[in-house]
Amino acid sequence: MSITAGKVIKCKAAVAWEAGKPLVIEEVEVAPPQAGEVRLKILYTSLCHTDLYFWEAKGQTPLFPRIFGHEAGGIVESIGEGVTNLKPGDHALPVFTGECGECPHCKSEESNMCDLLRINTDRGVMIHDNKTRFSIKGKPIYHFVGTSTFSEYTVVHAGCVAKVNPAAPLDKICVLSCGISTGLGATINVAKPKPGSSVAIFGLGAVGLAAAEGARISGAKRIIGVDFVSSKFEEAKKFGVNEFVNPKDHNKPVQEVIAEMTNGGVDRAIECTGSIQAMISAFECVHDGWGVAVLVGVPSKDDAFKTNPLNFLNERTLKGTFYGNYKPRTDLPAVVEKYMNGELEVEKFITHTVPFSQINKAFDYMLKGESIRCIIRME
Amino acid sequence: MSITAGKVIKCKAAVAWEAGKPLVIEEVEVAPPQAGEVRLKILYTSLCHTDLYFWEAKGQTPLFPRIFGHEAGGIVESIGEGVTNLKPGDHALPVFTGECGECPHCKSEESNMCDLLRINTDRGVMIHDNKTRFSIKGKPIYHFVGTSTFSEYTVVHAGCVAKVNPAAPLDKICVLSCGISTGLGATINVAKPKPGSSVAIFGLGAVGLAAAEGARISGAKRIIGVDFVSSKFEEAKKFGVNEFVNPKDHNKPVQEVIAEMTNGGVDRAIECTGSIQAMISAFECVHDGWGVAVLVGVPSKDDAFKTNPLNFLNERTLKGTFYGNYKPRTDLPAVVEKYMNGELEVEKFITHTVPFSQINKAFDYMLKGESIRCIIRME
Ligand SMILES: NC(=O)c1ccc[n+]([C@@H]2O[C@H](COP(=O)([O-])OP(=O)(O)OC[C@H]3O[C@@H](n4cnc5c(N)ncnc54)[C@H](O)[C@@H]3O)[C@@H](O)[C@H]2O)c1
Ligand SMILES: NC(=O)c1ccc[n+]([C@@H]2O[C@H](COP(=O)([O-])OP(=O)(O)OC[C@H]3O[C@@H](n4cnc5c(N)ncnc54)[C@H](O)[C@@H]3O)[C@@H](O)[C@H]2O)c1
Ligand SMILES: [Zn+2]
Ligand SMILES: [Zn+2]
Ligand SMILES: [Zn+2]
Ligand SMILES: [Zn+2]
Repeated sequence: MSITAGKVIKCKAAVAWEAGKPLVIEEVEVAPPQAGEVRLKILYTSLCHTDLYFWEAKGQTPLFPRIFGHEAGGIVESIGEGVTNLKPGDHALPVFTGECGECPHCKSEESNMCDLLRINTDRGVMIHDNKTRFSIKGKPIYHFVGTSTFSEYTVVHAGCVAKVNPAAPLDKICVLSCGISTGLGATINVAKPKPGSSVAIFGLGAVGLAAAEGARISGAKRIIGVDFVSSKFEEAKKFGVNEFVNPKDHNKPVQEVIAEMTNGGVDRAIECTGSIQAMISAFECVHDGWGVAVLVGVPSKDDAFKTNPLNFLNERTLKGTFYGNYKPRTDLPAVVEKYMNGELEVEKFITHTVPFSQINKAFDYMLKGESIRCIIRME
Repeated sequence: MSITAGKVIKCKAAVAWEAGKPLVIEEVEVAPPQAGEVRLKILYTSLCHTDLYFWEAKGQTPLFPRIFGHEAGGIVESIGEGVTNLKPGDHALPVFTGECGECPHCKSEESNMCDLLRINTDRGVMIHDNKTRFSIKGKPIYHFVGTSTFSEYTVVHAGCVAKVNPAAPLDKICVLSCGISTGLGATINVAKPKPGSSVAIFGLGAVGLAAAEGARISGAKRIIGVDFVSSKFEEAKKFGVNEFVNPKDHNKPVQEVIAEMTNGGVDRAIECTGSIQAMISAFECVHDGWGVAVLVGVPSKDDAFKTNPLNFLNERTLKGTFYGNYKPRTDLPAVVEKYMNGELEVEKFITHTVPFSQINKAFDYMLKGESIRCIIRME
């Protein structure tokens, strides 16, 4: 039992007071974990586009002051009542979506969309009592997707915490909390390309590069990157991408370009852009008879997916995935092992590192498109 | 070697001289099979909507005179040069789509859409020499989908002929050539419902009833039939359908009605209507996390499939199938065995039987919606 267990912890957190304004490192009070919750000491966290998107608050109802952050690695400091799957000292990755273990989704082998702990970007409080665990001089500071890892300590529902191999370096595996696992799982768990096959990856951001890494690990032969930004190809080569198409270089739809390159279409396509046009192209560029397209990107509210139904009748499959179909508690430990045994190369995703005091630099790198992942060191 | 081998056979065939006009039983000459072809003596044939559709010729370029028919059972009379998989005397089902064994689709485990022998409704000749094997006093009569089974003898590409167990009664298994296998395979091979699951079937025609039969065989617990014609429910009960929804009875979209009935959606949905609205409803009525919808119906030329992409992101899958994903030569023998061992109940589909001389009655039954399948006895 740690000496802080059951007590409020005062520590540093990067607070977003207003949309789009630099985060401010503040001293916050972190309440003890309530029933079903754990308090984590965060050692490393990284920045993902979703943080940036909700920080900019251009599309959604703004919720401030808030502590962002949802990719991280840490150690369990204390546990709340009834928590049995974790104990102080465990190495852990918090995840923005959870696994209650009881609902129909958790009981189904096919789903990871837990009814209780599925991502909720509007909620700024803990589900146990609809209150925050963060405060500054009594004033509540809101949570973000149940993780709020831009803080030295945070409170997370125990169903959203994956216990991992303590030998795994947290400064590397922290990126497995979100984007990298999402892209990797989209390929390995959902698209399932066969060795020797062809795979098109739409969007060469962190998620797309992780999808490419999944294709590389699966033994795909042709990994075709598709992006509007041609400079992304150079970096993408490290992730197995060995051909590149910029839709802007052609005066016909990119799905036709790809079909011509591949004698009728690719075996698998994975969309990692959030663009509805890319979703349609990804589906329409897979081969008839056996092609499978997987959607990963989060579309805009009013987007409509539209295609000729004959594309389906000709035996194409379209699926979507959330968090690469990984159940966080059940499946993340094995993803960490994939890194430990050298199959999955996580280092390639880490382009920058900054101390916690310079967290706003991580935002700059991402805004300028310079980083894939920037690790933020808490100590 | 039969005494007719290598010679022209004169026999009776039901010739469609004009769109929508009753067929006329004529004496036709049937040329010997050329390289890669077989000549079949047809014993039983049945009528499918596709025959009716091309006979009415409302949508397509008409091609007449023509011999329709593509569901049948017969015996190999003689074989052309190079045919090794069939010999005279073999019991066989001709199929409108084939399996060359050499193309990428035939070599793929996942596809049955043979590049060489895939259905072609516009072609009225044999692919070997672009000529017909049927004539009346030298005047060519066109083929239909490579089968033309409304004839005592017909010539078919050997890749479109499934050799079956000679103990199986051809007057029953002849219906496995098209619609019944299509619906059955859509469920068993593509939707793959688990025992105890819920399945919605859109359209309770022959194909939909066969899809329901597949769900019954798979051990589905709730089999929900959806059709605009409520009287279809009574017949459908024999095929395992145990709940019924008529979209016209509700003032909200049928996908919402089904989601309410099933606590969020069915596990599987199979669309067997050809209506684009039913295709969209079938997809949108499956449960998030694990739901799979399968499209079987042939859409109209200008239909567009349209849905909110979030429906995919929430881990729903949409697939289409052609001929239930069965490879005709490889897989049909096992479907026949499913009938022989009592698993698949084929008799339920056969509502009428007529002698060949009364083939036009089969068209009447289907036009009036009275029949599921009407068997036409050739002798
Ligand atoms: N489903 C999930 O669980 C999950 C988890 C994390 C992220 N995501 C989503 O995945 C998507 C990708 O995330 P990211 O962090 O890699 O984003 P990113 O912005 O770093 O990368 C997106 C890339 O797509 C390219 N792009 C945009 N439109 C394109 C088009 N029409 N054709 C080709 N390329 C195009 C951009 O140039 C960019 O390089 C986002 O929509 C994100 O919201 C989903
Ligand atoms: N993919 C293939 O390989 C293949 C093979 C054979 C048939 N088919 C297709 O399968 C479909 C069904 O064939 P069938 O012979 O059973 O046809 P059918 O006309 O006998 O049955 C169709 C049924 O669907 C119902 N229906 C129509 N629109 C509907 C809607 N919006 N909602 C609910 N019910 C609706 C009709 O009332 C009818 O009962 C057709 O489109 C046919 O072309 C496909
Ligand atoms: Zn759950
Ligand atoms: Zn993220
Ligand atoms: Zn073939
Ligand atoms: Zn048919």
